[in-house]
Amino acid sequence: MHKKHQIEVYVRFSETDAVGHVNNTSYFLYFEEARTKLFYEILPNRNKQSSMILASIHCDYVAPAFAGEELVVTTEVSNIGRKSFELQHLLTKKMDGKLVAKASCVTVCYNFIDDHSILIPEHLRDNLKKYQPLALLSKTEEGVHDF
Amino acid sequence: MHKKHQIEVYVRFSETDAVGHVNNTSYFLYFEEARTKLFYEILPNRNKQSSMILASIHCDYVAPAFAGEELVVTTEVSNIGRKSFELQHLLTKKMDGKLVAKASCVTVCYNFIDDHSILIPEHLRDNLKKYQPLALLSKTEEGVHDF
Amino acid sequence: MHKKHQIEVYVRFSETDAVGHVNNTSYFLYFEEARTKLFYEILPNRNKQSSMILASIHCDYVAPAFAGEELVVTTEVSNIGRKSFELQHLLTKKMDGKLVAKASCVTVCYNFIDDHSILIPEHLRDNLKKYQPLALLSKTEEGVHDF
Amino acid sequence: MHKKHQIEVYVRFSETDAVGHVNNTSYFLYFEEARTKLFYEILPNRNKQSSMILASIHCDYVAPAFAGEELVVTTEVSNIGRKSFELQHLLTKKMDGKLVAKASCVTVCYNFIDDHSILIPEHLRDNLKKYQPLALLSKTEEGVHDF
Repeated sequence: MHKKHQIEVYVRFSETDAVGHVNNTSYFLYFEEARTKLFYEILPNRNKQSSMILASIHCDYVAPAFAGEELVVTTEVSNIGRKSFELQHLLTKKMDGKLVAKASCVTVCYNFIDDHSILIPEHLRDNLKKYQPLALLSKTEEGVHDF
Repeated sequence: MHKKHQIEVYVRFSETDAVGHVNNTSYFLYFEEARTKLFYEILPNRNKQSSMILASIHCDYVAPAFAGEELVVTTEVSNIGRKSFELQHLLTKKMDGKLVAKASCVTVCYNFIDDHSILIPEHLRDNLKKYQPLALLSKTEEGVHDF
Repeated sequence: MHKKHQIEVYVRFSETDAVGHVNNTSYFLYFEEARTKLFYEILPNRNKQSSMILASIHCDYVAPAFAGEELVVTTEVSNIGRKSFELQHLLTKKMDGKLVAKASCVTVCYNFIDDHSILIPEHLRDNLKKYQPLALLSKTEEGVHDF
Repeated sequence: MHKKHQIEVYVRFSETDAVGHVNNTSYFLYFEEARTKLFYEILPNRNKQSSMILASIHCDYVAPAFAGEELVVTTEVSNIGRKSFELQHLLTKKMDGKLVAKASCVTVCYNFIDDHSILIPEHLRDNLKKYQPLALLSKTEEGVHDF
């Protein structure tokens, strides 16, 4: 049962720059909003002992976006390790589905009390699997980017 | 002994918008940086029992600013009440002193533990007076915007 | 026929600060989004000869807002002058209607080709009147803040 | 003759988030400022026919940074291709040199009139070489990430 997580974002005028389109730094606002909403679904009982931190993010800029446009961020889980997992974000235009950018990021499960990384909690792992594309399911246990 | 507080800020490209100049929301980043640095000087031992919150801010936009420009924020204390005080920020171009914007804001002294406003601590009041223009000194005790 | 313009905004984590709630600079992102959407409705054929610039904005901070909250920005036209008009923004919590902040701002009609302010175009004036509270209609022609 | 490009940035309160440290999206503000200042040095006569666009960026988050801290962004050129080049940014604390984050990004030379990528202009190539670490000079012509 494969789920995709999707949110819609409106491009604010303040998110553009003097070149006329969305500034390169604004894309990360959209990806963070997508991640935050996904995490709220898959780890609703987040607390200081069982939380997550962003370890890295990569963004490929594909096409410009403009003030007033409606965009869609589609997020999937592309890899699940022991203590960390990787997400893929696709940013597309709502109107025609045109790709604007794609990003991948690694999130690490973290205990802020003891200040060290922790194993992915079982209920979180179960929820992450629901957002994995079928083709990736077999790669689940490899943990390429694991911490 | 009248002091003016001054900081320099560099206009980031990300702070401009598609019209080609600094976005109206970015000015508040500069004013907050000025305020934060001033507060660090005049209330270095800030803590949850003796802190400050911003109650209001007003900005008049006078002339556009552009990516890469160096600006100066000059801050003075324009009014001191019982529990609150008012600052004036002037935003000018470093190159020629041209006025870009002016702002005024009211800050309230606050105890975050008990969650209520407090009297301006005496050492803070003494420090605030150093940043008052001479012409304003006589108005000190009126507290027009006071809380 | 009085209309209120309303938009919903989601508080992004990036819009909060280390005190734990929405940073004072982020409110202006919400107000700009509201204004932009309203202007798209009331002046859809905006161009360089017939555009608008923000002359001033004032914000009163009433209560904190937090990451993940849904807020509502309600906008009305509070004054219409010859070349400028004033808007009122109310920022409330979607859940319970609690007031978070209120703002007012003055927008000036502007010709970017000739670089000077212009009279409010008639079709814009007609549209602005639709967003005036009834009690304010009689004050329309005074133009207190006019440019 | 190897040069490193360095800028200092002050962490604004608005750049932190409710976790208490600099938000993941704010790092890109610092990297963009570094890039913009470097580009102003190495391609001062930038215009629509000979400009640059950001193709991708990657950031590894290493340690948190906090409001009021002074940080340093050190930038080097890590690869030069035919139409694109790669930069490395190191973000460190000014006080003790501690690493906060590292990033790499690919910039493509671009003609905005014809809307296509162009060869790196010779004078830009010469300037880029000055910012290459010596060990990387031999790899110059490979253009691994080239467009």
